Amino acid sequence: QCWLKIIESDAQGCTDENGVLHEFNSKWTTKDCQSCSCSKERMQCCSLVSSPVDYDKEKCESIFYEETCSYKVVEKADPSKLCEVHSYVG
Amino acid sequence: QCWLKIIESDAQGCTDENGVLHEFNSKWTTKDCQSCSCSKERMQCCSLVSSPVDYDKEKCESIFYEETCSYKVVEKADPSKLCEVHSYVG
Repeated sequence: QCWLKIIESDAQGCTDENGVLHEFNSKWTTKDCQSCSCSKERMQCCSLVSSPVDYDKEKCESIFYEETCSYKVVEKADPSKLCEVHSYVG
Repeated sequence: QCWLKIIESDAQGCTDENGVLHEFNSKWTTKDCQSCSCSKERMQCCSLVSSPVDYDKEKCESIFYEETCSYKVVEKADPSKLCEVHSYVG
């Protein structure tokens, strides 16, 4: 999922959701796993997270790792074992 | 928004939501404005639609054009006049 904000012509850079001003032509990653870029026309952020959708929900569970912005799907009974995932969203 | 389906090793191509089989390394656009691609490992579809979010909802309305998979935001009183849109999602 991406979102895009139009930058006013008199702006000095792109102000993000936390009020931080980013320079034109800069890129950054947010704490909530979004990859953002700033240009004179727009600020654009896209989620880095791809969520597992199609897997055995009886036997398995998905665990989110903030450091890598990714999910792992493991067996409930034995989390050292990965489960098969057939589709992702995001 | 994108979604991705893992392709089984014995598959002959990618079967889409309407049961149509697509060749490996092919690309297509669906009627509901998704751009899809098929490879031996995965079928991936991403929405082509970017929805206007931040605009004057009193004065303006957004109209979706299927042919171009895009929205136009126009004045309710005079649909020939475009409205300013400050951000989009999708």
